[in-house]
Amino acid sequence: METTKKTIILFSGDFDRVMAALIIANGAAAMGDDVTIFCTFWGLNVLRKSGKVATNGKGKKTGLQSMFGRMMPKGTGRLGLSKMNFAGAGAPLMKKVMKQANAMSLDELFESAREQGVKFVACTLSMDILGFSEGELIDGIEYAGVASYLGEADEANVNLFI
Amino acid sequence: METTKKTIILFSGDFDRVMAALIIANGAAAMGDDVTIFCTFWGLNVLRKSGKVATNGKGKKTGLQSMFGRMMPKGTGRLGLSKMNFAGAGAPLMKKVMKQANAMSLDELFESAREQGVKFVACTLSMDILGFSEGELIDGIEYAGVASYLGEADEANVNLFI
Amino acid sequence: METTKKTIILFSGDFDRVMAALIIANGAAAMGDDVTIFCTFWGLNVLRKSGKVATNGKGKKTGLQSMFGRMMPKGTGRLGLSKMNFAGAGAPLMKKVMKQANAMSLDELFESAREQGVKFVACTLSMDILGFSEGELIDGIEYAGVASYLGEADEANVNLFI
Repeated sequence: METTKKTIILFSGDFDRVMAALIIANGAAAMGDDVTIFCTFWGLNVLRKSGKVATNGKGKKTGLQSMFGRMMPKGTGRLGLSKMNFAGAGAPLMKKVMKQANAMSLDELFESAREQGVKFVACTLSMDILGFSEGELIDGIEYAGVASYLGEADEANVNLFI
Repeated sequence: METTKKTIILFSGDFDRVMAALIIANGAAAMGDDVTIFCTFWGLNVLRKSGKVATNGKGKKTGLQSMFGRMMPKGTGRLGLSKMNFAGAGAPLMKKVMKQANAMSLDELFESAREQGVKFVACTLSMDILGFSEGELIDGIEYAGVASYLGEADEANVNLFI
Repeated sequence: METTKKTIILFSGDFDRVMAALIIANGAAAMGDDVTIFCTFWGLNVLRKSGKVATNGKGKKTGLQSMFGRMMPKGTGRLGLSKMNFAGAGAPLMKKVMKQANAMSLDELFESAREQGVKFVACTLSMDILGFSEGELIDGIEYAGVASYLGEADEANVNLFI
């Protein structure tokens, strides 16, 4: 009855922390583990569609939710670094360094995780607070709350909060 | 001999991270799990009494400890955001967004956790370093060190560092 | 077949978070647990030799890697605080507070962990990205990637991401 399932709560939307989460998830999936990444709060930004999106969903955003929405990055392409971000210049530098080192980009890590079957879950409570509707998030993900997370964590042998 | 006990090391005192910890703790407690939150470093601020408190306890604070004490927030009402804090304006905005979304406030999440029997432990080593005495922290919590944490973590099936 | 092995991914290079990781590692080692700390990204700074180091290793650094290298701290002596860092003034104040409280310094915690047999592993992927060669890191550590981490995490009962 050994399990090798892994769960990651991706709370952070920082470029470097998202990268760490995706590297672990890709590695575990490559070894045959079930992996679920629960995206909460800033981590939801990873799942946002890029470009302008018509907000359907449950009613309208409040003014504050619109403001938060406009100020937060959309998708893996626009995240900032947790350290040495230099008002936004740090992440492009890190991307350049990664390219020079022939490391996979964040986008590639994300696509690889999806192809390997890593399950991405959007935290519905965070969505309610930040005013995100399902139409603003990418396709092929699941929607769930903390009870669902806890159920999966109980079945896993490694549970990280990133 | 399955366990569903959960432990959380609450290292951060950021509004959003504390909220994540309390949501997980409340969810687990509602599902019947034992939950212990070890508050260390900035996480100790969650347990501070608000208002002016006579510092009894073991001797006096040093000047530096007094300075750290004055600069750090007291209780769940005054924590800042880890991102987009805008020199303190971010947390009030987040609180307003949460209220508009009918989400529980941080205070309510904290009280709910206490009512559901979530155990809060103050890390005594952090207290020594930051110069906090027991009289400065709220009632009904426990005091312990890393050995106690490790003992509980060994009995738990989910252990998070937040 | 109970295990008490512990793993910590030390992603952060913040003084206070490194301290938390080392306190947990020392505590667990003192209780007889096997402990492995995987240093990735900013956490690699903990393993850097202080002073000027000739970069041998696989080829030369790119200009950007040199820049990152120069801007990041070397070893436990020069790390900054995650909060209230005050442009670098926070960590020295915290060190002074710790000394006054007779707490172990970060250097002492690090040495104690090494003496107690805590295993330090440098993440090779992070090294490639940041351009660190083995000659720039301290002696007596191991080098491995995510597969090695996952193998150890599967054998452990507590796995933290700090």
